[in-house]
Amino acid sequence: MKIDLKRNCPFNSDNVPNGDVVLSSRARLARNLEGFPFVNRATASDCAEVASLLQKISNTKDKRSALEWVNMDELDTVTTELFVERHLISSNLSNATHPRAIAVGPELSRSVMVNEEDHIRIQSIRPGLQLHEVHADVHQLDMEVEEIISYAFDSQLGFLTACPTNVGTGARFSAMLHLPGLRIIKDLQRIHNACNDMSLAIRGFRGEGSGTIADLFQVSNQVTLGSTEEELCNLLANDFLPPVLEWERKARRVIAEKQRSKLEDQTFRSLGLLQNARLLTSEEAMKCLGNIRLGVCLNVIDNITLPQINQLMIELHPAHLRYTFGKDLPDDEVNRCRATLIRNIVDS
Amino acid sequence: MKIDLKRNCPFNSDNVPNGDVVLSSRARLARNLEGFPFVNRATASDCAEVASLLQKISNTKDKRSALEWVNMDELDTVTTELFVERHLISSNLSNATHPRAIAVGPELSRSVMVNEEDHIRIQSIRPGLQLHEVHADVHQLDMEVEEIISYAFDSQLGFLTACPTNVGTGARFSAMLHLPGLRIIKDLQRIHNACNDMSLAIRGFRGEGSGTIADLFQVSNQVTLGSTEEELCNLLANDFLPPVLEWERKARRVIAEKQRSKLEDQTFRSLGLLQNARLLTSEEAMKCLGNIRLGVCLNVIDNITLPQINQLMIELHPAHLRYTFGKDLPDDEVNRCRATLIRNIVDS
Repeated sequence: MKIDLKRNCPFNSDNVPNGDVVLSSRARLARNLEGFPFVNRATASDCAEVASLLQKISNTKDKRSALEWVNMDELDTVTTELFVERHLISSNLSNATHPRAIAVGPELSRSVMVNEEDHIRIQSIRPGLQLHEVHADVHQLDMEVEEIISYAFDSQLGFLTACPTNVGTGARFSAMLHLPGLRIIKDLQRIHNACNDMSLAIRGFRGEGSGTIADLFQVSNQVTLGSTEEELCNLLANDFLPPVLEWERKARRVIAEKQRSKLEDQTFRSLGLLQNARLLTSEEAMKCLGNIRLGVCLNVIDNITLPQINQLMIELHPAHLRYTFGKDLPDDEVNRCRATLIRNIVDS
Repeated sequence: MKIDLKRNCPFNSDNVPNGDVVLSSRARLARNLEGFPFVNRATASDCAEVASLLQKISNTKDKRSALEWVNMDELDTVTTELFVERHLISSNLSNATHPRAIAVGPELSRSVMVNEEDHIRIQSIRPGLQLHEVHADVHQLDMEVEEIISYAFDSQLGFLTACPTNVGTGARFSAMLHLPGLRIIKDLQRIHNACNDMSLAIRGFRGEGSGTIADLFQVSNQVTLGSTEEELCNLLANDFLPPVLEWERKARRVIAEKQRSKLEDQTFRSLGLLQNARLLTSEEAMKCLGNIRLGVCLNVIDNITLPQINQLMIELHPAHLRYTFGKDLPDDEVNRCRATLIRNIVDS
């Protein structure tokens, strides 16, 4: 399988809706086949049979929306890790050995994972605030899958899933938010309170249990039972996000006005560091890119664009670097290649 | 009094002997007048009389070596603080009120302080390793002063001084060393041991009790009694420094060869930070300049020279900044002006 990291990367587009605050929107549906044990209780032959049934999904008539079918066992370690970095598979499952597959477009935006935690994980990810659009994407894929197999469904509970937290709609909507303004004016508690009030989960960039990095926060619905997919999507897209965008933008305006020196200092320092460092850890690079992102949004600098920053925030991760610089890149060369990759973009 | 910070600044010269490791060499003689109480026991009128006797020193025939006589009470706070930053007067004495004066050349290299801790402090400072030269300077001034007054001298003890640690020759020779190589290869203990063996004192950049900053160390003789000036000067210049220069240079060669990536990373990061920061504390600026200094010595970069770095290491201090940017510069503008000053040099 050949992935083109640049072409159609979901983060590398201009004029992203609300891209100043929202990096990406994601929808994911968990589904299982009727009459098969869940993956964690299935034999290898069960898994192989599930995969074989689902392979038809890649035989679509419309070439533009075609998904490529890849057996995970045939995929090298680097590409598998790259899927983890793109949130397509969990890192626990990247090393599993049972038959798994992925049907995916070259941009890794729309995908169907087979025999991940559930038999089927349908996902779509798009840049900026496009929750209704990613919902439409997964809904469309959901229909296509249901044409070829029958889902495990309970009239009381809804869709049955391996983990009880996904039962019901099996739907998870999430948005990756960049909230440097609220962090700087020390008002992040407001976001945590709003999430709490609306039963939304808030996590750092790396997902559950991780700290914040580069002021990035991932917000998603916790409840999947008792609401429709539409209601869950609206909760995040229509109820939660509009005030959050306003708070963050207001905080940024205050900073631009009242803390101009500090803002300029932080922006140019981070730019200078990325333009000059020869060795960069991902933490440091992310932190600097986050600072520069704020500076770009507040017109402190204009020699780099938000899509470039968003793209770097993805491509700086180890498997992505190995995909670019060579799959056998030794660990102690990763920090050097990361610095080179970033320098080539920010120093041009 | 008008000081030209750029012209004839003792640090801003090319082809400084051993300038890769030695920033500056300094000699200082402590002397007191016969028949007058030491400054700490003197009345204001004693001090005024001492100053009046010594004022003749500025009436030299040779215009090129002329010293300008300035009463400290007539000097503004900023210039007084600038003298502290140049190690001409102690910071304790900058706020004293008794009659004090300084006879000094515009470059602040050769100077005679009157009514500092001792009635007379004769000093010369030059860039690089020029201990014999600064000794010749102070010896010359010593002769000129002795033509106009009589020193407090004891045939057993030698020159009498306010602090017993200066009794004897009253001479202190010191060299400011840049030792990043030995710090990086973790071999600084060797320097401390050598100082210990030779009864030399080693201190950080800011003098007694201060920590190290930017890998700068000031080494000076502790003993002033029982040796001649010449012997004290030789101890530092001929016995201590030649092996130290060799150890430091060898450490740097090892780093250039074995830790090339780290060296380049450290150099370019520091350069990038100084080229971009809008606010800089003196600690951070010194640290970056120290890193860049090593990079310049090891040919990692060549867009800045050692004299420029040395000059910045002096001019970044608050009183120097106020001398350049305006004497009424408020405290909260100092970090911004420091960043501007440095950026104008390293970014050109």
